[in-house]
Amino acid sequence: MATSGKVIKCRAAVAWAVGKPLSVEEVEVAPPKAGEVRVKVVATGICHTDQHVLEGLFPSADFPLIPGHEGAGIVESVGEGVTSVKQGDKVILLCLPQCGKCSFCLNPESNYCRKTHFSESQSVLPDKTSRFTCKGKMIHHFLWVSTFAEYTVIPEYAVAKLDAAAPLDKVCLFGCAFSTGYGAAINTAKVKPGSTCAVFGVGGVGLPVVMGCKAAGASRIIAIDINKDKLAKAKELGATDCICPRDFKKPMQEVITEMTGHGVDYAFEVIGHEDTMIAALASCNMNTGICVMIGELPSGSMISIDPMLLLTGRTWKGCLVGGWKMRDCIPNLVSSCLEKKVNLDLLITHRLPFAKVNEGFELLRAGKSIRTVLLF
Amino acid sequence: MATSGKVIKCRAAVAWAVGKPLSVEEVEVAPPKAGEVRVKVVATGICHTDQHVLEGLFPSADFPLIPGHEGAGIVESVGEGVTSVKQGDKVILLCLPQCGKCSFCLNPESNYCRKTHFSESQSVLPDKTSRFTCKGKMIHHFLWVSTFAEYTVIPEYAVAKLDAAAPLDKVCLFGCAFSTGYGAAINTAKVKPGSTCAVFGVGGVGLPVVMGCKAAGASRIIAIDINKDKLAKAKELGATDCICPRDFKKPMQEVITEMTGHGVDYAFEVIGHEDTMIAALASCNMNTGICVMIGELPSGSMISIDPMLLLTGRTWKGCLVGGWKMRDCIPNLVSSCLEKKVNLDLLITHRLPFAKVNEGFELLRAGKSIRTVLLF
Repeated sequence: MATSGKVIKCRAAVAWAVGKPLSVEEVEVAPPKAGEVRVKVVATGICHTDQHVLEGLFPSADFPLIPGHEGAGIVESVGEGVTSVKQGDKVILLCLPQCGKCSFCLNPESNYCRKTHFSESQSVLPDKTSRFTCKGKMIHHFLWVSTFAEYTVIPEYAVAKLDAAAPLDKVCLFGCAFSTGYGAAINTAKVKPGSTCAVFGVGGVGLPVVMGCKAAGASRIIAIDINKDKLAKAKELGATDCICPRDFKKPMQEVITEMTGHGVDYAFEVIGHEDTMIAALASCNMNTGICVMIGELPSGSMISIDPMLLLTGRTWKGCLVGGWKMRDCIPNLVSSCLEKKVNLDLLITHRLPFAKVNEGFELLRAGKSIRTVLLF
Repeated sequence: MATSGKVIKCRAAVAWAVGKPLSVEEVEVAPPKAGEVRVKVVATGICHTDQHVLEGLFPSADFPLIPGHEGAGIVESVGEGVTSVKQGDKVILLCLPQCGKCSFCLNPESNYCRKTHFSESQSVLPDKTSRFTCKGKMIHHFLWVSTFAEYTVIPEYAVAKLDAAAPLDKVCLFGCAFSTGYGAAINTAKVKPGSTCAVFGVGGVGLPVVMGCKAAGASRIIAIDINKDKLAKAKELGATDCICPRDFKKPMQEVITEMTGHGVDYAFEVIGHEDTMIAALASCNMNTGICVMIGELPSGSMISIDPMLLLTGRTWKGCLVGGWKMRDCIPNLVSSCLEKKVNLDLLITHRLPFAKVNEGFELLRAGKSIRTVLLF
């Protein structure tokens, strides 16, 4: 299937500079080059990481850019040599590629790929150019995905082909939030049946952690959040105990240690604050407790810990997008959704037309949404 | 076997106060009470942790005390109810007990016991009294073991019974140094065949880490130390590459990343410095790298890290005495020694009569010894 070869004019939300609201503009999207795919984005979630980008806190983002990294769509055309997807295929755009060839991809225990933004710029495509222009100016990609555009161009190894029955307005969450949280429990912590878990922060990523802990058979899941609406949702999704730190004078690690006798088996930090990172680590029991760090501090931030927290036997680790090899695994997760084994409905609190993208960010900043999905 | 019931007068090295050299004194050792064992110590190693005690850096040590925690000996008498050892049995004294009954002991994945000094004072025996007096004063135990005494009294669940053929002047190292280092590689990191390892600090504990990595089949073992004599020993024991940081202007993590392409699979910190703890963590590859912290910072020290080191997928963990359930496992390690599968000879650089205990500490402080064994 060759490329259509035409430049497409369409809408996109452009971040012209740090600290400015997004501006919905008409942009030009060049056709895909060899090894690339042009996707008509159908639905995209709004994630805290996009907010970090707008605030200038994402280390490798270059402005002006089109953010968005949690999208699903339909292949519009493919570049030369693309064989794994064709026009009309439903896909999820992957913020973590899977080239399948590098030493990391060949490691069965890792979902990391040497083509991530940690290794090379994803502000431009692999040939070091952008496919986006607006008002005569080159606009950067973001993490190669840039899902806040009606059409986007991306390397073939950064899309996952879906079942044709997949509801794109829901499964877009597999592009980031759901996979990140659910996978942190299933793949990274490897939560065991009968175990105890604590989840610090139960928003769009923390709630899927709760779902993952429940799916893995945890006997006790303690949700911690300052937002009681989110705690209520955590309870619906499987949390057995819900704690609001504002109801206690003690640090959360003391409360959780008292609740459990000697700390939980697994703790997850899904907020991105130094204090909660330490609290999560200290909430694990000191012999075999595993703490998974999911929330991100602003680039360059340091965190100060007492090494005794680790010396006695705790494990502290992180993961990218829940440890899934995304091209291989996301289609299976989508199948679980189609089989009603995974329910995304409680996570999607708002659906907005794409033009209301800034309203979606306001809901996020106000803590009023779990996930807002923008629809083109 | 009932207790002999008599107070024994014997020699011991007493630390009367922080910062003072040890004083070899005549002490009185009371007979074991119910559940206790009195052991004639035959040989004991000198460990950096003992040096930390003398400097006042060990958090739960109470002065005056008798240090020493890496000893082997022969049961002299047992208290009421003791059934697992009897007079004449060869034993190793365990600085990490294994009561066998607590929730931690019952967890097959942990070697932690709720009777450690993290949970209760080991400056006195479980009945809150000491068996040592000297010049009319009560002298504290240290970690219940106090192996710098010719006779010591200890709970039954803190001794491991050995094969009668065990050479006590060697296997005393299983009480701490060897087990800690070897187990960190085998049990905590679970080093895999063909993997790459870096060991920061190759002294009495770091060299057994090298031995553990080799036994586990690592294809590359990088030893890092400022002491070139120790590096030479690391090479003899299995290190494939030896690096002296003073030969480089770059940080060690950069040197190791360049040597290996993208960092090692496993890194071990066996020094107890903030800088090397960070260097070890950053030397691991960022997707599946595992860093094991073995060295101890002075109590209360904090360490400042960039959380991105973990977020991309690294794992940071610690362990106590190499993760072995000590009563269960130490006898097996001793058997490996008897079968010549484990060679302790290269680790024991000095043997001194007990009276020369302070000379042994001087060798340790000067970096001239790997392990000095004191013989009664």
